[in-house]
Amino acid sequence: MPRVILHEVGPRDGLQMERTVVPLAIKEDWIRRAAAAGLDIIQVGSFVHPQKVPQMADTDELVRRLTADPVGGVTLSGLVLNEKGLERGLACGVTMVCLGASASDTHSRKNTGMGSEEATRRIVGAARAAVAAGTQVQVSVQSAFGCGFEGPIPEERVLAMVRAYLDAGLRHISLADTAGHAHPAQVRRLFAAIRALDPVVECTCHFHNTYGLGMANIFAALEGGVTSFETSFGGLGGCPFTKVAAGNVATEDFVHALQHTGLRPDVKLAALISLAGDVAGHFGRDLPGFVYKTGPITRTESP
Amino acid sequence: MPRVILHEVGPRDGLQMERTVVPLAIKEDWIRRAAAAGLDIIQVGSFVHPQKVPQMADTDELVRRLTADPVGGVTLSGLVLNEKGLERGLACGVTMVCLGASASDTHSRKNTGMGSEEATRRIVGAARAAVAAGTQVQVSVQSAFGCGFEGPIPEERVLAMVRAYLDAGLRHISLADTAGHAHPAQVRRLFAAIRALDPVVECTCHFHNTYGLGMANIFAALEGGVTSFETSFGGLGGCPFTKVAAGNVATEDFVHALQHTGLRPDVKLAALISLAGDVAGHFGRDLPGFVYKTGPITRTESP
Repeated sequence: MPRVILHEVGPRDGLQMERTVVPLAIKEDWIRRAAAAGLDIIQVGSFVHPQKVPQMADTDELVRRLTADPVGGVTLSGLVLNEKGLERGLACGVTMVCLGASASDTHSRKNTGMGSEEATRRIVGAARAAVAAGTQVQVSVQSAFGCGFEGPIPEERVLAMVRAYLDAGLRHISLADTAGHAHPAQVRRLFAAIRALDPVVECTCHFHNTYGLGMANIFAALEGGVTSFETSFGGLGGCPFTKVAAGNVATEDFVHALQHTGLRPDVKLAALISLAGDVAGHFGRDLPGFVYKTGPITRTESP
Repeated sequence: MPRVILHEVGPRDGLQMERTVVPLAIKEDWIRRAAAAGLDIIQVGSFVHPQKVPQMADTDELVRRLTADPVGGVTLSGLVLNEKGLERGLACGVTMVCLGASASDTHSRKNTGMGSEEATRRIVGAARAAVAAGTQVQVSVQSAFGCGFEGPIPEERVLAMVRAYLDAGLRHISLADTAGHAHPAQVRRLFAAIRALDPVVECTCHFHNTYGLGMANIFAALEGGVTSFETSFGGLGGCPFTKVAAGNVATEDFVHALQHTGLRPDVKLAALISLAGDVAGHFGRDLPGFVYKTGPITRTESP
């Protein structure tokens, strides 16, 4: 089994949803701890207009601080929505640029003012520019498994977007279940179809747990050969532009499940559990994650 | 795909954990509503000593009331821990008797005062008596996937218990993940091993969601050919005799996931969601289920 890649998106997908802005120093601390725990990629934030999402206004400064004094071999990623955001990302020196468009026209229009096809063309253009500038690039299909506005999304529409990415030489592709509609059989079917398009495409998954199926979908993807996953500390998260969206699968829950089966023993689970507890403490509420509350599986007393 | 059988265990596994005793009339209403929604089997309660688990003291009376004025074709099951409990179950006319022993010696001793082997022998004896009396019988292996006290449980020990059941002619077997330690690869492996012992054994699963893997394990079991599942309304539940145990997978979440893939369209999901909401309201707290809070997947506005 190839190494499972862990992409922490809590600092972006989690914090963009919160009513309060987390101070830069606290974000930096959380990101450094996640990196020191051994996660592979951390999405520091989003290069979106600070008036649109004030929670992300400090993303450039965060990247600068983190790259000035780097933690281990972690890759720092940033979400880029358009050409202006790409400029900012490149200027502050982010290692990986994540761009995406929605497979749902309605979701796409609400998010960007453009339909799905036009948004995909724009994203492909920006992604090519990012590749030319020498950064790592991940392109995503949002609402790939269903949409809170449109309901089911035809598989063909998702595959057409994947084909557009592949045709542009973009081979690191993430499928996001923005609304949480994915189910395990669909996950297996869609990834098999993508692998039929291109057997060596590098796929990443991003599952929301709106209807309780997030972890089941992760395991369906794992069995389908996907080895890269976006998760969020404590299970924070959700998309502010869809009507119903709950948290992501919790990073520490996923790492716990992997380690329970012998995978990624190098990641410091206790550090991730402590981080999720501190994030919950900061917001003063329970987060959706399980393991930061129960602690890891252990023999609790001698027989 | 054969029909998925839904066994509701909330009235037993859920309510036995609660600090307050739910009045008989309310239990009866909940059970009638779950039956009217189309669930196949409902575990009414446990024939345990009323001083040990006062929450279950009215099980006999409940069964009598429900059988006096039955709802559709539902099967009423009751948990039986010993010969005395079996007598009570038979006397009040329960349709299906559920008996079990733990694969963990420590768990077994805490629960019954006997080690695993001795407890299994006793359960086999009682189960044979139940068969002879003409009731349906399900025998279970508790802590089949791991134990909060002992940690991992050797697969061989679980298979030895399954073999003891099969040798006694008991072919309806439930594997319970009492502590929530199961993971999908283990679930597939264990059920494949059981099917190798007996290709036509009727297996049921019971997964606790302590570490967030309950639904992932259900789907692993489904793919492994298991077609009968024990779940609990709202995700209530847990075993009072293990140190760490969270709720079961929520019945309405599982039905929602099945219907999302086209299975069991006959079950009235809206009625189950309303029931889970009322159970949560009765206890005055959020339950672990997702769908009773979010509502089912739907196109939320026109494009």
